Amino acid sequence: MNLEAIYHRPRGNWAYAYDKATLHIRLRTKKDDLDEVVLLHGDKYAWDRTLEKTFMEKLPSDERFDYWQAAVQPSLRRMKYGFELRSAEETLYFEEKGFREDEPADPDKMFDFPYLNPADVFSPPDWVKEAVFYQIFPERFANGDPSNDPEGVEPWGGKPTPKNFFGGDLQGVIDHLDHLQELGVNAIYFNPLFQATTNHKYDTSDYMKVDAHFGDNALLKRLVDACHERGIRVMLDAVFNHSGKEFEPFRDVREKGRDSKYADWFHVMEWPIQVKDGLPTYETFAFEPLMPKLNTEHPEVKEYLLGVARYWIEETGIDGWRLDVANEVDMAFWREFRKTVKDVNPDAYILGEMFHDALPWLGGDQFDAVMNYPFTHLVIDYAGKGIIGADRFASKIGELLASYSDSANEVAFNLLGSHDTERLLTLCGGDKERMKLATLLQFVFPGAPCVYYGDEIGLDGEGDPDCRKCMEWDESKQDRELLGFFQRIISLRKEHRALRGGKLAFLHAAEGDSLLVLERKDEQDHFLIAVNPGAEAASVEIDVKQEAWEDLLGGGEAKASGGRLKIELPASGFLLLRAASSISAVGFPAAR
Amino acid sequence: MNLEAIYHRPRGNWAYAYDKATLHIRLRTKKDDLDEVVLLHGDKYAWDRTLEKTFMEKLPSDERFDYWQAAVQPSLRRMKYGFELRSAEETLYFEEKGFREDEPADPDKMFDFPYLNPADVFSPPDWVKEAVFYQIFPERFANGDPSNDPEGVEPWGGKPTPKNFFGGDLQGVIDHLDHLQELGVNAIYFNPLFQATTNHKYDTSDYMKVDAHFGDNALLKRLVDACHERGIRVMLDAVFNHSGKEFEPFRDVREKGRDSKYADWFHVMEWPIQVKDGLPTYETFAFEPLMPKLNTEHPEVKEYLLGVARYWIEETGIDGWRLDVANEVDMAFWREFRKTVKDVNPDAYILGEMFHDALPWLGGDQFDAVMNYPFTHLVIDYAGKGIIGADRFASKIGELLASYSDSANEVAFNLLGSHDTERLLTLCGGDKERMKLATLLQFVFPGAPCVYYGDEIGLDGEGDPDCRKCMEWDESKQDRELLGFFQRIISLRKEHRALRGGKLAFLHAAEGDSLLVLERKDEQDHFLIAVNPGAEAASVEIDVKQEAWEDLLGGGEAKASGGRLKIELPASGFLLLRAASSISAVGFPAAR
Repeated sequence: MNLEAIYHRPRGNWAYAYDKATLHIRLRTKKDDLDEVVLLHGDKYAWDRTLEKTFMEKLPSDERFDYWQAAVQPSLRRMKYGFELRSAEETLYFEEKGFREDEPADPDKMFDFPYLNPADVFSPPDWVKEAVFYQIFPERFANGDPSNDPEGVEPWGGKPTPKNFFGGDLQGVIDHLDHLQELGVNAIYFNPLFQATTNHKYDTSDYMKVDAHFGDNALLKRLVDACHERGIRVMLDAVFNHSGKEFEPFRDVREKGRDSKYADWFHVMEWPIQVKDGLPTYETFAFEPLMPKLNTEHPEVKEYLLGVARYWIEETGIDGWRLDVANEVDMAFWREFRKTVKDVNPDAYILGEMFHDALPWLGGDQFDAVMNYPFTHLVIDYAGKGIIGADRFASKIGELLASYSDSANEVAFNLLGSHDTERLLTLCGGDKERMKLATLLQFVFPGAPCVYYGDEIGLDGEGDPDCRKCMEWDESKQDRELLGFFQRIISLRKEHRALRGGKLAFLHAAEGDSLLVLERKDEQDHFLIAVNPGAEAASVEIDVKQEAWEDLLGGGEAKASGGRLKIELPASGFLLLRAASSISAVGFPAAR
Repeated sequence: MNLEAIYHRPRGNWAYAYDKATLHIRLRTKKDDLDEVVLLHGDKYAWDRTLEKTFMEKLPSDERFDYWQAAVQPSLRRMKYGFELRSAEETLYFEEKGFREDEPADPDKMFDFPYLNPADVFSPPDWVKEAVFYQIFPERFANGDPSNDPEGVEPWGGKPTPKNFFGGDLQGVIDHLDHLQELGVNAIYFNPLFQATTNHKYDTSDYMKVDAHFGDNALLKRLVDACHERGIRVMLDAVFNHSGKEFEPFRDVREKGRDSKYADWFHVMEWPIQVKDGLPTYETFAFEPLMPKLNTEHPEVKEYLLGVARYWIEETGIDGWRLDVANEVDMAFWREFRKTVKDVNPDAYILGEMFHDALPWLGGDQFDAVMNYPFTHLVIDYAGKGIIGADRFASKIGELLASYSDSANEVAFNLLGSHDTERLLTLCGGDKERMKLATLLQFVFPGAPCVYYGDEIGLDGEGDPDCRKCMEWDESKQDRELLGFFQRIISLRKEHRALRGGKLAFLHAAEGDSLLVLERKDEQDHFLIAVNPGAEAASVEIDVKQEAWEDLLGGGEAKASGGRLKIELPASGFLLLRAASSISAVGFPAAR
């Protein structure tokens, strides 16, 4: 047994309260090293009388490790535990004090989950698990009110540059809610809406005012109401790491220097504030002098920004905040932010922008979720660009899922493109079938998928600013076939719980093979998803317990006989198969 | 290279802000697998211009792993990083995205410490690093005021039973502060002082009142003042997990059942509250019906208990709280507790009772430290009982130190015995020399040592209640030689910073050998500590850079010549050697 590979440490992704009654316990072992792992668990004050043994289930593996998980419900909300590790050669036990050959009996030496306190349960809003987001970059979605256009506005549909304007606004969004509803999305993520000087509005000058080129505060409230009437939630972008250079406090500091009453609202390293040899003498986002970093530890700044967070929820009824550059702001601030936001709307979604390992922010005290860029990159690399194979895709997905709690995975924000990246179609080399294939993977994955405006009707675009093209509203210029695909996949996800929350397993993901077969299964339903982003046709046979499968999307061939299902996919082909019978025939295994 | 053994995950004990300017980065590798590890680090927005390479230092290893650490100060408070792993056979690189053979150059794929925000720096009070605690079980320390003795009080020095009383009180402590000062301790940890029915007072009936048998609130204030005048800090015991059965709200619930306005202050599983088949129908500490668990999530309970925490700091000026059964109370409560306590006294020490891995509570948002029972057990097993060898002691200590941040290790509460365990002398089989040896290890370890009242004058005692004997004040019955040892070791620790904060390394800890040589070294000073808890004499030669060593405690022989130091220790022998020359001769290595 490879002991160096074995890892467990209570809390984080390894031992957490999944809900008010259930603990999830995970263990890492070397890949293919163990046959079975059994969780030994009981009450710490009555071990002998309460000892139970629960077989752990295998989660998707990664390149190097297997991951095992058990869900248990300690009746008195407290639990000691250890692991029984079974390989062909030996059985070992693993407890907090280390490995041993005989079954542990002293709870003092075992792992401890001292108490399942509801206040510490990480409980992201349930609606996010059912959500399909649509990201709107407001300057480019629709111009519903030419009277508020910025000076020098260019004709709709022109070429985007870093600084030009096309007149998109909130009225435009209101005018096109039918499109969103027809598409089937039920949540909008808006890029920033507040007063700012740029077209992207990430340089806020007034956090309490909708940008005049977009409308006004009352119009935003009308927009949110109109969305809610259609069952569409609304999430805004909170740019709290930094302000813009025209933010009144920063203007004051620029003008009065260290005598400004706002001098401590920012991080000034050297007075006067200036850019010296290319470097600002105050802290900024990256090295961008127009985006001074806010001192979120200053009580006045805190009060101001928390007031902003509260105001927009109370005034307009928004359903969540996406937090820009969330990882650079202090965690103490985010803890207060969470408290503030959940106090006024316990169901609000708090989504952090985070490019790296985000575990420290996902313990239940800060964010509900993060933007799932690791997922983005894997889907693009595998399905979009074909630069990694199915085996690597599956193993990196295994690593990703194991690195967070299920609670966090279920509400991850799964995007494939955004205002910061090339558009999905362009990432896929213009190959629409590959784009569908990537989108299929996105829509059968745990977490909330997000469609970047226009992707659904075939907009393409290189990186910023080209990915911020105006939305195409001329139906004759829209890709209506692609739109149909998006409508179908969105509706399938909304219809079938197993596609959102079923157990995920990779049934086929072999080295040197582009074809991947993925399973999603719950008590009611059983799906197989097969994709082949390769340039050649591919096929595989897998074991199945039943013969009748319904193809919900088309795109390939699947025939079952004698317990084997033969899947044949053309280049860029995909299949979404649903077991045609009820669950009893599928033989969903009971918990052991 | 053993890749399965390599572990790093930002935050926790692996990557943390040690102070407002410094990050500590750690890496785990398989023991003896690598020769060198280099940290590659730079600014995330300007990697190429800012890349630096820092050699990592090896921390004490454990049975299976080596641990490497580097301290770095990123000038813009943000840092991306990766590791260069060098073995005799190969050089590999390790970044967030995995292992690679060529030097990483894309900061997006590297590990990230996004921002060193001061609000998130874990900053336990500095005074604890200099503290020597003395634990007082108040009912048994000294009876200074017979007028407040409980009914049925027994003569001082009688045999303790679970329920008897001997009349110890706060006046007794005041009367004997000379003893504490002569001993040299500079902090007291008091077992509970508030109104309760038992002799141990862990069943609080009134959190706002000093127990009438101990004195009153005003007397406690006089005691704290008297301590402060002598430079002695005072920490009280907060029993917030549960109350006692006479706590007014619980009395009300017992009387009125679910109609009580305090019904939600506790966790009632079934009305009426009762003990059914030996099990309380309400949640308790362990299965103890006299200790109902408090609902610390209830706003009124929270307000009440936070008020208690604040009251005693404000009213009496105490310097810290020790939190009983801290791991069973919700973390959300402790976060508010920390805020409350630090608001009124930023220098207050918050110490959690915690028997298991406590990392989740030591991130800077909850406790400053935990009671270091793993340390206790290792010292007892190695030095006190001789049931583990020097190699196992050293490797388990290595594991322990690596499992927490330096910030946490530096203020750990290092006890060798308490009101809950056999007394140290008894644990050492009555062998006073072994007891000294264990105490020596305690006093050269990172963290604050604590002496349990009476240990210093030779009190012995089996487990509770025998370990709660009355303090012996008759000098003719005290072990004055042992007291002298305690005075000496306390004074040495207070005098020499290196014994508290120097770099710790094990120079000799071999399998099958009881003799251990430990080093503590800082810029000014260099100590060697040698102990031999074995039943036979033992000796060892180690390499040294200098020949002149001063023996500060006696107990063995040490002679250096030709770069070798020969250490000879009798059974139960020990040495505390100090390099007799200035630091330049010792050749403290500069940071590479």
